[in-house]
Amino acid sequence: MPPTPSSPTFSAADLRFSLDLPEWVAAELNLLPPTLPTLAERMAEVIRFSRLNFQSQTGGPFAAGVFERDTGRLVVIGVNRVMASGCSSAHAELMALSLAQKRLGAYDLGGPGLPAHQLVVNWRPCAMCYGAVLWSGVRSLVIAGEGPELEQSTGFDEGPVHPQWRGELERRGIEVHPDVLREEALAVFREFSASRQFVYNARLGKHGP
Amino acid sequence: MPPTPSSPTFSAADLRFSLDLPEWVAAELNLLPPTLPTLAERMAEVIRFSRLNFQSQTGGPFAAGVFERDTGRLVVIGVNRVMASGCSSAHAELMALSLAQKRLGAYDLGGPGLPAHQLVVNWRPCAMCYGAVLWSGVRSLVIAGEGPELEQSTGFDEGPVHPQWRGELERRGIEVHPDVLREEALAVFREFSASRQFVYNARLGKHGP
Repeated sequence: MPPTPSSPTFSAADLRFSLDLPEWVAAELNLLPPTLPTLAERMAEVIRFSRLNFQSQTGGPFAAGVFERDTGRLVVIGVNRVMASGCSSAHAELMALSLAQKRLGAYDLGGPGLPAHQLVVNWRPCAMCYGAVLWSGVRSLVIAGEGPELEQSTGFDEGPVHPQWRGELERRGIEVHPDVLREEALAVFREFSASRQFVYNARLGKHGP
Repeated sequence: MPPTPSSPTFSAADLRFSLDLPEWVAAELNLLPPTLPTLAERMAEVIRFSRLNFQSQTGGPFAAGVFERDTGRLVVIGVNRVMASGCSSAHAELMALSLAQKRLGAYDLGGPGLPAHQLVVNWRPCAMCYGAVLWSGVRSLVIAGEGPELEQSTGFDEGPVHPQWRGELERRGIEVHPDVLREEALAVFREFSASRQFVYNARLGKHGP
């Protein structure tokens, strides 16, 4: 007997989801050198990817890279894929961390036998991605900046990050490097804002049913 | 010319990842009625799935369900898949929200044309999942409890959630229903603890390189 229309029926396919990066990312990654020794070099690439993402209309102006902290060896750079993939958690940090964990075969990037890993992001992570950094096992977080400029220029809501966010990271063995190429990152947000692309901000100030 | 061993080379497959629920979940979901009218009925199922998940050794003792808020129509129930899938962000809430968004074809569960949706979780979401709730578009969060009992009995680190976490949700149009079947949820955490399964807590207090 076929299920009634209102009956939930679940197949294995209904209980699986996939997220991916746009095609241009593979081509760009394959052009990069295997290592990017300085924090500024790593951030410059992350910022370049954040610009390419909104210019290519493949996602918002956000990118995040995972590197080996001490050598700068590239693991992967991810970009925001929320609207493209229909998944509100497909932020750049979650894409990069999940793909790095797949690539290295480890849900803990700071686990036994692995070198220390670092996440490089073109602004302070939002409330969700802040938590994702904690659980990822990275030992180092590099950000282009923090503060209201991102929300002011783009309209994105970054959510309530804990007031002691930095101390809570350091308490868990995660060092923070702020203000790496801050002006360069802000320039991308201003370009994005000027492009008048749609911003999904979970209706802050616009409450529905 | 083949790439040198140290050269990063990325294929499309390297830039995609998939997460899924264990096989038993589909069977259990297909046994449920299409709607669960009361909050207690919804939470009872979520708690049952949290217990099944650790007993089946398919993940930690956490589950989360997405329902239509007003009718109780079931969308999906997810469970924790961190260790099973090698992905530190595969918490129950992220699994449930992402699968619900796939099922409904919308990255915003509160978007135009959709009824209000509700997330039901067997404890207050961790720092990461708290942010994921904000971005998911759900209008309602039901939790079995909050407070240190979860961390005390299991050893999991829930991370630094914002001190005004509830007000910040309500400010974004998300109502909170606390303490639904609190004792029943705590019983599962105690059973999990007694089972002495491995707990991944991002090395709080155990700092590596």
